[in-house]
Amino acid sequence: MATVNLIEYEAASPAVRQVYDDIMTPREINWINNFWKVLAAQPELLQRTWDGVKSVMAPGVLDPLTKEMIYVAVSVTNGCQYCINSHTAAARKRGMTEEMLSELMAVVGIANQTNALADGFQVEVDEAFQYGGRES
Amino acid sequence: MATVNLIEYEAASPAVRQVYDDIMTPREINWINNFWKVLAAQPELLQRTWDGVKSVMAPGVLDPLTKEMIYVAVSVTNGCQYCINSHTAAARKRGMTEEMLSELMAVVGIANQTNALADGFQVEVDEAFQYGGRES
Amino acid sequence: MATVNLIEYEAASPAVRQVYDDIMTPREINWINNFWKVLAAQPELLQRTWDGVKSVMAPGVLDPLTKEMIYVAVSVTNGCQYCINSHTAAARKRGMTEEMLSELMAVVGIANQTNALADGFQVEVDEAFQYGGRES
Amino acid sequence: MATVNLIEYEAASPAVRQVYDDIMTPREINWINNFWKVLAAQPELLQRTWDGVKSVMAPGVLDPLTKEMIYVAVSVTNGCQYCINSHTAAARKRGMTEEMLSELMAVVGIANQTNALADGFQVEVDEAFQYGGRES
Amino acid sequence: MATVNLIEYEAASPAVRQVYDDIMTPREINWINNFWKVLAAQPELLQRTWDGVKSVMAPGVLDPLTKEMIYVAVSVTNGCQYCINSHTAAARKRGMTEEMLSELMAVVGIANQTNALADGFQVEVDEAFQYGGRES
Amino acid sequence: MATVNLIEYEAASPAVRQVYDDIMTPREINWINNFWKVLAAQPELLQRTWDGVKSVMAPGVLDPLTKEMIYVAVSVTNGCQYCINSHTAAARKRGMTEEMLSELMAVVGIANQTNALADGFQVEVDEAFQYGGRES
Repeated sequence: MATVNLIEYEAASPAVRQVYDDIMTPREINWINNFWKVLAAQPELLQRTWDGVKSVMAPGVLDPLTKEMIYVAVSVTNGCQYCINSHTAAARKRGMTEEMLSELMAVVGIANQTNALADGFQVEVDEAFQYGGRES
Repeated sequence: MATVNLIEYEAASPAVRQVYDDIMTPREINWINNFWKVLAAQPELLQRTWDGVKSVMAPGVLDPLTKEMIYVAVSVTNGCQYCINSHTAAARKRGMTEEMLSELMAVVGIANQTNALADGFQVEVDEAFQYGGRES
Repeated sequence: MATVNLIEYEAASPAVRQVYDDIMTPREINWINNFWKVLAAQPELLQRTWDGVKSVMAPGVLDPLTKEMIYVAVSVTNGCQYCINSHTAAARKRGMTEEMLSELMAVVGIANQTNALADGFQVEVDEAFQYGGRES
Repeated sequence: MATVNLIEYEAASPAVRQVYDDIMTPREINWINNFWKVLAAQPELLQRTWDGVKSVMAPGVLDPLTKEMIYVAVSVTNGCQYCINSHTAAARKRGMTEEMLSELMAVVGIANQTNALADGFQVEVDEAFQYGGRES
Repeated sequence: MATVNLIEYEAASPAVRQVYDDIMTPREINWINNFWKVLAAQPELLQRTWDGVKSVMAPGVLDPLTKEMIYVAVSVTNGCQYCINSHTAAARKRGMTEEMLSELMAVVGIANQTNALADGFQVEVDEAFQYGGRES
Repeated sequence: MATVNLIEYEAASPAVRQVYDDIMTPREINWINNFWKVLAAQPELLQRTWDGVKSVMAPGVLDPLTKEMIYVAVSVTNGCQYCINSHTAAARKRGMTEEMLSELMAVVGIANQTNALADGFQVEVDEAFQYGGRES
């Protein structure tokens, strides 16, 4: 149902193939998911988006599983079907158990609830929480 | 700027005071933040919301810091000023460093970007990602 | 902080004044709120928006207070500060008590929570709920 | 398409069955909708969510039909397919006519429009609307 | 899957048919898309919505193609499947090429990303940007 | 009110200064707006975000003013105060008149309205609009 044509590996330009290879190699898979095939219509958009995802999702002070769960939390809040499914799958691959998924959803659920309550009553930020509690 | 009167501890009913005490004791603080003072106008809403937050945010298979960062991720995506500030502060109290905050935001940022791209091109969920990659 | 100049009654064109009068007369007030002063920069946008609001918010099979509370529910979910404040005020004028406001917020809160859970787990619509339960 | 396994009544633990019974009895139905079957993977999440929904949606100063319509308004604004369908169906069961649904949608539509306009022009809250018009 | 019955041309009242004709004539088509058939259940809602769309989308200081692309940008950000598809199609009819669609999406993607970052870090509006840079 | 410390030019590392220079030079300004000062806490995030914005907002098949208006449309829909103000200012610098801003907002407003209606009634995508009208 995508609104643009998907670019398959066989039909891809060398520049697109290089990104495709870079996606498949570290994941040890031999297929490309639809998201990238859709971006490939504009190689620059594909390259930049992949570079961003690769860089941001690499291990850092946060581990990759934590990052995937944060990704799921955002995707759920936006209601993005594709990203909920793909990043839930990715989190599972990185070790997320059913129990962890349930806890993740419980947090996402209550955060959405209290976000609505805080906005709904127009609660003022307490002095102690200003600047996100940082020492200024 | 709250749209309802805030209930201070001194003016609170015994039922509300009990919740207030339950909030302050484990945190070892002697003040109540505005969010709860606003809910206290309807004690049942206060009680139920607090019970929910306390239960969900308790240590489980996910640690409290990870939960706070997920809370921040949702609040950012919803653009809730109160919750962004209060939960960034809470995450800091639980050990989130500046570097962790930056990585958290980098993930939240790119997730919002790719959510838009996946929705924008109406990308179809790959078979491998259906059911969030669970074994059905 | 508006991003356009506000058009005051004195400086308004006859076409804008007519809308302003139409806003003030039924409400028995002698001032115009900022929202309309901002739209007045483009009289057609002002006229069309006011016509829409006037028509939609008029008594119908739903009473005006119920409509105002629905308006608040949407505004909270979108996190629109201006509309939360203005329509909470409007609902109060139409008889919303503090208790009603608390119940309204409780519903808005739990709806946002379960929306996230339903999306988060990608729950499939039950056959009985398809077509919103209408007899097709 | 749910990302977790659904727990059917027959396979459910006694704790889950008790919640299922509590859901079916007052509604005089003998089936459980997918939303609850999905939460049942974590019985505590099921119990807490059901307790919340049951308590919030019970008759109060707002009647159950009004509450269901508010629920629909939130679900539409979030674009949650499951909740739009299930709560439109629930509202119909409680007496919402086609005409009421159309008026509900007209309000939801115009609220989303004016939310965008108020945010888009960064309209400042009028003094009379501050604190949602409450007497401070 | 619509939650209300669709009103076909043959079954429509004269008032509804008049709107249907007004939709089809300038587009030189002989069919009505589902969106209008759904609104037709309440002729007033149909009329008002159509009048609004017709007026807003007419050529003005912004050309119709630019307007359609802005429409797509909003629909993507809201994740509205129907509107993404219908307005992407409309933009194509008005001359949007594949390359333009890709650039549109690139902007929508990065805007959603930086919106999250600006909200996430609670960045304060610079003096030079206040009032959207207008001369006050 | 930012939740992290802002990095001023004087206190910036050479890597950050280089980005700052790259931001100021083409705009012919000698100050850095808060958004970048906030990202500078993590130089890599600053660099990547700036590279993305610079590349995406450069003239392409869409002109820079059109891109800025699309940016505003997204920011309004997300309700991001910082981005609404900064990109409205940027669009004005590129030639957006008051009349163009009003038309932009009129489109954003009606798109948000019809998005809600299409979701609210769960309108099914017409065959002619599937795949966004592309020739498959």
